[in-house]
Amino acid sequence: MRDAFHEDLDSLSDQLVEMTRLAASAMARATTALLDADITLAESVIENDVRIDDMREQLDIKAIDLLARQQPVATDLRIVVTAMRMSADIERMGDLARHVAKIARLRFPHSAVPADLRATILQMGQVAERIVTKAGSVIAAKDAEAAMTMERDDDAMDDLHRELYEHLQDEKWQHGTETAVDMTLVGRYYERFGDHAVSVARRVVFLVTGEWEPEQLTDHEEREDSAH
Amino acid sequence: MRDAFHEDLDSLSDQLVEMTRLAASAMARATTALLDADITLAESVIENDVRIDDMREQLDIKAIDLLARQQPVATDLRIVVTAMRMSADIERMGDLARHVAKIARLRFPHSAVPADLRATILQMGQVAERIVTKAGSVIAAKDAEAAMTMERDDDAMDDLHRELYEHLQDEKWQHGTETAVDMTLVGRYYERFGDHAVSVARRVVFLVTGEWEPEQLTDHEEREDSAH
Repeated sequence: MRDAFHEDLDSLSDQLVEMTRLAASAMARATTALLDADITLAESVIENDVRIDDMREQLDIKAIDLLARQQPVATDLRIVVTAMRMSADIERMGDLARHVAKIARLRFPHSAVPADLRATILQMGQVAERIVTKAGSVIAAKDAEAAMTMERDDDAMDDLHRELYEHLQDEKWQHGTETAVDMTLVGRYYERFGDHAVSVARRVVFLVTGEWEPEQLTDHEEREDSAH
Repeated sequence: MRDAFHEDLDSLSDQLVEMTRLAASAMARATTALLDADITLAESVIENDVRIDDMREQLDIKAIDLLARQQPVATDLRIVVTAMRMSADIERMGDLARHVAKIARLRFPHSAVPADLRATILQMGQVAERIVTKAGSVIAAKDAEAAMTMERDDDAMDDLHRELYEHLQDEKWQHGTETAVDMTLVGRYYERFGDHAVSVARRVVFLVTGEWEPEQLTDHEEREDSAH
């Protein structure tokens, strides 16, 4: 049987997994709200983001309390510090889902997404949901190997993002500037969502291997070389 | 005379101040590069971002080492944890300056900024430089009162951001979609830069008052109610 401290550490991990579940659900619903111009769904994503924020707050309070009371070292210290970083990433993913939902709400009763971009946005939503769900599994299983495959998963998001921007900048674009602005922001939100999922994965690698590598600290976006 | 541990804590603070100085310089130069289509300046911002990344890495390694070796509690623990959060904010500010510089490089030899938006972008750059410089002073002086005025400083950025988006979405917009996409992203980068400076300020408030408030944890953007 584990002692109380290690049970606390396990509960940090459980909370992180639950946060990824909420972020996955938020982004899936935000994508549907955006594509279907569903104002009720959009509102629910916007309102429920506070649940992820609260979980982050509770997790961080708990983590600081563990640092103060238990004074962990080595692996245990890494677990606590890494949990705080992951909670920041996942909370931000919730914010990004909320941003997508806000664009859905802003354009209601119309859909912000023109017909010729629906397939791209749908796929970005699906990749986002898949990648954050995988991040949750990686945290739960402390699976560094699976974590290391997540950059590849995120490449699919980067490809879709590039495709979206190329489409926007095509001379044949006929949907006006307002829609271009909306789609630029939406594209950025999905891309950043993927980046934060990759950050989470990197932190699991750090947790398991104990090695500091600059790539595990800096933002994933750092090393991309997209047009922007 | 201070003991070695408290000298280490002071040096964390000094490093954070130095990081804000680098971020201020990066954003000032990125703004000039963007407005003047100065490719050399843009390249230097892009290349030098690694200096901020390295400082963050060093600071975080130092902070974790202090947690492990000194096992700080109470105020000292708050200083270490808060320093790690601030370093993440400021590193991200450097990334955002780099993003602005990348748009300057992408559109070279042209300026990405149309004539009728030059004044707005110039002001966004100036507000960004002012706010991050103030964040540096606030860290150096542990000045919670000044920190609490920084949300107001950031309101100027939010106003400019709103003005920019209104301009982009005006029917009279005549600069095409590519420029609209560029300006949408640039506007977002400046706005986020301001948000991170406000986050830094909030963390100083936490450091001084020792009170956890949700607003000190969640992203500043959280409470804004802009169109997007």
